[in-house]
Parts: sequence; structure tokens; C-alpha cells
Amino acid sequence: MPHFLSTTDRNFEERFVALLAMKREDSPDVDDTVARIIADVRARGDDAVIELTAKFDRMQITPQMIRFSDTEIEDLCAQVSAEDRAALEVAAERIRAYHVRQIPDDQMWTDPDGATLGWRWSAVSAAGLYVPGGLASYPSSVLMNAIPAKVAGVPRLAITVPTPDGIANPLVLMAARIAGVDEIYRIGGAQAIAALAYGTETIAPVDKITGPGNAFVAAAKRRVFGKVGIDMIAGPSEILVIADKHNDPDWVAVDLLSQAEHDESAQSVLITDDAAFGEAVAAAVSKRLETLERRAIAGKSWADFGAIITVRDLDEAADLSDRFAPEHLELCVEDPDALSAKVTHAGAIFLGAYTPEAIGDYIAGPNHVLPTARSARFSSGLSVLDFMKRTTLTKMTPHALATIGPAAERLAQAESLEAHGLSVRARLDRLNGGIDE
Amino acid sequence: MPHFLSTTDRNFEERFVALLAMKREDSPDVDDTVARIIADVRARGDDAVIELTAKFDRMQITPQMIRFSDTEIEDLCAQVSAEDRAALEVAAERIRAYHVRQIPDDQMWTDPDGATLGWRWSAVSAAGLYVPGGLASYPSSVLMNAIPAKVAGVPRLAITVPTPDGIANPLVLMAARIAGVDEIYRIGGAQAIAALAYGTETIAPVDKITGPGNAFVAAAKRRVFGKVGIDMIAGPSEILVIADKHNDPDWVAVDLLSQAEHDESAQSVLITDDAAFGEAVAAAVSKRLETLERRAIAGKSWADFGAIITVRDLDEAADLSDRFAPEHLELCVEDPDALSAKVTHAGAIFLGAYTPEAIGDYIAGPNHVLPTARSARFSSGLSVLDFMKRTTLTKMTPHALATIGPAAERLAQAESLEAHGLSVRARLDRLNGGIDE
Repeated sequence: MPHFLSTTDRNFEERFVALLAMKREDSPDVDDTVARIIADVRARGDDAVIELTAKFDRMQITPQMIRFSDTEIEDLCAQVSAEDRAALEVAAERIRAYHVRQIPDDQMWTDPDGATLGWRWSAVSAAGLYVPGGLASYPSSVLMNAIPAKVAGVPRLAITVPTPDGIANPLVLMAARIAGVDEIYRIGGAQAIAALAYGTETIAPVDKITGPGNAFVAAAKRRVFGKVGIDMIAGPSEILVIADKHNDPDWVAVDLLSQAEHDESAQSVLITDDAAFGEAVAAAVSKRLETLERRAIAGKSWADFGAIITVRDLDEAADLSDRFAPEHLELCVEDPDALSAKVTHAGAIFLGAYTPEAIGDYIAGPNHVLPTARSARFSSGLSVLDFMKRTTLTKMTPHALATIGPAAERLAQAESLEAHGLSVRARLDRLNGGIDE
Repeated sequence: MPHFLSTTDRNFEERFVALLAMKREDSPDVDDTVARIIADVRARGDDAVIELTAKFDRMQITPQMIRFSDTEIEDLCAQVSAEDRAALEVAAERIRAYHVRQIPDDQMWTDPDGATLGWRWSAVSAAGLYVPGGLASYPSSVLMNAIPAKVAGVPRLAITVPTPDGIANPLVLMAARIAGVDEIYRIGGAQAIAALAYGTETIAPVDKITGPGNAFVAAAKRRVFGKVGIDMIAGPSEILVIADKHNDPDWVAVDLLSQAEHDESAQSVLITDDAAFGEAVAAAVSKRLETLERRAIAGKSWADFGAIITVRDLDEAADLSDRFAPEHLELCVEDPDALSAKVTHAGAIFLGAYTPEAIGDYIAGPNHVLPTARSARFSSGLSVLDFMKRTTLTKMTPHALATIGPAAERLAQAESLEAHGLSVRARLDRLNGGIDE
């Protein structure tokens, strides 16, 4: 059974804080192993990658096999059914249409002092996307990572995807092709992250690495951060549903289970202003769990981390939701827009009972790579901006420098940075005829 | 003497790569110490902070003294000269005017399938700015960190600034007051980062931490990343000047020295299409170094990491600059706009001989917190966006769900995520009259 809480309970605050603080994920300390793997790939390049792939993915490859050939990609894509391909194409089209709107504007203006100021955005030159192998090898994640990169204008986009025992997922290859990925490598783990960051004989280094992965991948991303840019470190998935009694308990139940089925460490929470509705949802979850394919995973997540919280009113629900800062927030209430306006911290909001979170995982358009573990308090889902960087621009005229230069000189002196001041003073002296001209 | 290179040298590529790869900074391994400090502050709060402050800053304080009182701030600000205060106010005004333009737009639209999509931005609830103590305690950095946060709309903005031996920098307090900082704490080091991230009895935790610091501060920021957001880890400063022969060698010389004087690990590079001009700049640097206050620091930086590179033409200069991806790029050439358009990777560009980089350190308006160590390839200077996060919004109508839902269901099946598919199917069945209504 999930945790049942009510804001009218005398010990509610204590129990709520305990729920928030629950440690859902054991991060095994793999840092030393990962450091060794990275050092090995830096020192020995392809040879190290090949050895580590033999060890971890039980697959002997040659340097020529590290990268999927066009023929291999073609052959694998041919195994994808027309229906699956069509669904991927619809998804790609909608994801692209959403992300195109994120392309930022350049600006340039001249201010009253005569200084021309602005900025411009440019794409990173090369990005690498990590795609997990095995069970969690999701073609939708390929679309969600690759499309923003291509919309940003990244000219070179590489994917690494391990193929344990040599088994590749044709849908992943198809998604990569639809998204316009330029290079696909059949490697994974910390060795793939190291190869992307530092390069090998076969793999040119990239500037930015994104994508989810296991503890080894996450530790490797942390280690190469600085050498390259990385996206956030993803934790287990979360959904928070705020629902009033005018909902079908079964809809809410499957929505809760749609995140619980990802991972035993996932967390699904219902907040409702109607205790009886909460009970009905709990019953509906139990019923669905009887037959769900992934009931072992979903059932454990629901029992360990699931929660049903009864509140006095929806304002209270919005406040509690902000304390969770959930990755996914579903608002199944009469006026979801009004409730949404009261929420500040959430990765993605799904408005109304006809917007199940899963629609956002695949096809709505917004990115499904979202901040977990309360990090929506300070970070955002993946976007086009993650594959771009901004260069600021400053252009002074002699007049502008004469106007604002003295204040800069004064501050340089206050900070005891003499050469800073001199670099302004040298120009001001010229303008004042102090030196020559 | 700096390194002299020319693209016509037979071994140029080799020497250029060596120059790029030079390790300028020894990062002492302070990770274990920092881990202990953080654990101590988490466990013992104010008591730990007070003990560590006594140890590292040689200053015995009480819990009441951790935060600067209004009276103390008032008294310290009264020590600032009217001229310094006026210069800070001019700088603050210009920095604010620039950053206001970075406030991002919210968007919301309905697409042809009837799905309403969009996003909205919101500020983090609380931010903490680290300000170094001692020599590198720069009021300009307070403005550059605090103003974007306040422009973003951060309601609670805290500063930590160590005051070794009890000595506070009045200009730092004044800058904080001008920028609208809400709380100022007289602590520093890893203990300050831990207190901001986890909170103590006196200091409420924040969601985002920015600002430069020494190796302990940098290691602590890396460790608390995930619990809170952090900005980039700043490395030693860099300037790259591209200048043709129609420049005053002395101007370029002081510009190069304005970064060299920051730090023995700073790097100043001139790229010119005229070898004689390069020699003249080298001579001018030597002359300035004879009298410069910080000549010990600047001279060592220039000798160890300084470089003058002669190129065949300015196109070659732009290419080499992109390989440096410099923090600061000055374009002292006849048509700086045309040359700027050929550059892709730079933190900030300063256009024309009347735009010394130092004007950007203080007063031009763009942020002076910029990517170092080649990270301009994938990251940007500090901005209003660093203190905001984006929530994506999705709202389906029954019609929209009926249109795009089946593709989502198909992809869920392809990924073996049954509950994902069921959450869509449950709604589709209702719409099709398959279950009830």
C-alpha cells in the first residue's frame, strides 16, 4: 500500500517532510572504477574501448565495427514495422515543431551613451547523445535528445548505444535516422562517455554530452564535466497528480502506474481534496496491478514510494506540489489553468484529464528529459538552448568610452587592478589629446 | 618572454596544439577535506560554521555574528567614497539595463491538431552568491552575480563573503546593497557553500549557488551540484587580442596585461597579421611591466602562458581563435564586425580598438562571469536565465488526444511500457464510447 497522508493529520508536516526526504536511489560508489575506465580510454583509445566492450557487453568487435555502417543501419531500420515508423515520424514532427520555437533571438542595440551592445547565439560544433542499451533503450529518448540538437543547428551529432551480446534495437536506429543523427557507435558505459569527451582513433571528441544512463554513465558524465558540457544527471522518474473527485479513478491510477512501471525507485503521488476519491484511486491501482506486465516493478515503486495525500483545498495542493517540485505534474481539476498559475516548481505540467503524462513522453512535443529529485526548483527540461551558447558583444565609440570609461577606471583602481585602469586610461588620454593626435 | 609562433613555421601545428594543451592551473586535490567540511556543516550547522571560520579566517564569531546586521552594513557603506559609490551605481545601472533584455518570453499556442502547448519561465526561490575574501574580493563581481538574479526576480538573494581576520571590504557591502542583496553572511570557503546548500540554524538553504572561489569553493560547488544548481566552475582568466598593424602597440600591451595581472595562471594571447607589430607589442608589454604594480603576477603569466602568433591573414586568425574558444576576445582591426562574424566560440567579443576588455569587466553591461578553459565551445556567460527555470505546458482536448494518442500508444507498446499505453487507451476508449458514456 502507498503512504496515506492528510493535511488534517496532527503529524502531517513530520510525515510529509519524511516523504520528501526519502532516499529513493542507492547510488553505488563507482567513481574509482569510472576514473580508471576514463584514464584507460584516454591513454589507449579504440583498444581500450574494444576491451571494455568485450568485458561489459560480452561482444568482440574490431575498430571498424565501433561505428555502425550505413548498410547495417539500413538493414536494422528495414526491420521496423511501417506502423512503428509512422508513429516515430509523427512524434519527430511534433517534437521538432515545438523545439523550433525555442530558437533564441540574437540582439544588438545602441544605448544612449553610444555603446553598441548585444549577444548572439551559436550551436555547439559537435554533440554526443548517450542511449542506454537493453531494457531501457528507448527510441523516444533518441528523438527527445537528438531533435533539439539538430534544431539548434549542431552540425555533428553522434550517438553511442551499447548492444549487449550484439543485440541492437532497430527502433533506436530508426529514431536516430529520423532525427538526423550523423554517427552511431555501438558502445556504452563509462567508456562511451570517455570516448565522446576525449576522442579515440575512430571517434572524434564532442563538446556536449547528453542522455540518460546507469550509475557508471552518470559518474562518467560528472567526471568529464568541464572538458565538455553535460546535461543534468537524471534520477528515477516521478509523477504528481492533483485530481478532484470529478475524475475516473482508473485514469488517475494508470497515470500513476505509468511512472511507477519505469523503475522500482520511481515515485507516484496523488494529491486530492476528496479522501474517498483517494481511496478509489488506491483500489484502482491495486486492480490494475493484478494484470500489469511490469507489476513487479510498478508494485514495488507504488508500495515503497507511492503516496496519496488528502488536502483541504486545491491551494494547499499547489503548495505541497511546489515542495515536491515534481518532474511531471498532472492537473486533473475543473480549472487546470487557474491551478497551474499557482504552481512555481515543476518540470512539465499536463493540464486537464485528457492530458495523460504519457502523451508528453512520446508525442505532445515538449521534451521528456526533465528535472528529477526536486531539481525543478532550479533547472529545466532539455531544450534547444542546451545545444547552444551565447557570445556577448560590446562595441564602444570614442565618445561612448569617454562617457563611461572614467567610472570603469575608478572601479579598477578600487580593486587594485592597475592594468585594467590603464587600458581605459590609455584611450582616454588619446581622446583628450593627452598623448598624441 | 612569451611564446612566439607563426603559422608559416614548419612545426606550427605542433606548437599551437602544445600551447592549447598547456596545463595552467594546478588543482590541488582538496576533495576529501571538502567532503568532511560539508558533512560537518550538515551535521552541526552553525556550530561547525563558527569553528571552521575560527580556523580558516582566524576570527571568533557568535551565531548572531554570522549574518551582517543592518547597522554594520550601514557603517561599512559609510566608509565608501562618494566617487566609488557613484561609479558602482553607474555600473549597476548599465548592467541592469543589459540584463533586463535577457528576460525570456513565455509562450503558449494551439497547434493544428488542437493541442495547446507552451512553456513559462519562473525565478528560483532563493539564490546564494559566493564572494571571495581578501585580494580577490571584487565589488564588480557582486554586481555581475547579484543583478542578473534580481532581474530574474529571485525573491531571496544571499551573499557569503569571508572576512579573514575580521576585515570586511566596504565596497563589497556597498555593491551588495546597490544590487539589492537581501542577506549577507561573513563566512567563506567550503563551509559557506555547504551552509548555502543545506542550511544551518541561521542560514536558510538556497536553490542555486553562483560565484567564483578558490579550489575549496570549487570542489564544494561540484559536490553540492544536484542538491542545488551551480554556475560554471571558473578557471583562470584569458584574453585573446586579434590586432592588425594599425593599432597602438601600447594599447594592446595594457589590454594583454589587464588579464595577466589577475593571476599567474592567466593567459594573454595576441594574434596579428604583422610580425613587426607583434614585436612592437612584446616590447610595449616589457616596458609596462617595468612599472606595473602587479608586475610579479602579470610578468609570470606573460612569460609562462603569453603568446604572440603571427598569421597570414585575418581568416586564419579567426580559425585559431575558435580553437582557443577564449573567454575574452578583442578585435582591434579595421572591420571588427566582419571579423566577429567569422568567429563561433568566444565568451565575449570586444569590437574595435576603443573597446578595451576592461570596460566589460566593470561597466559596459554584459556579464563578466564568462566561460574559461575552452568551455566557450559549449557554455555561456552568466545571465538572467541562470536564475530561472522553464516549465513546459501541455493541454490536450479530447479531439487532440483522439488525433495523436494512437501514435503515443503505439510507441509505448514498442518500448514495452504497458501502463504508458493504457493511460492513453483509457481515454481513447471513453472517446470511442468503448467503455461508458
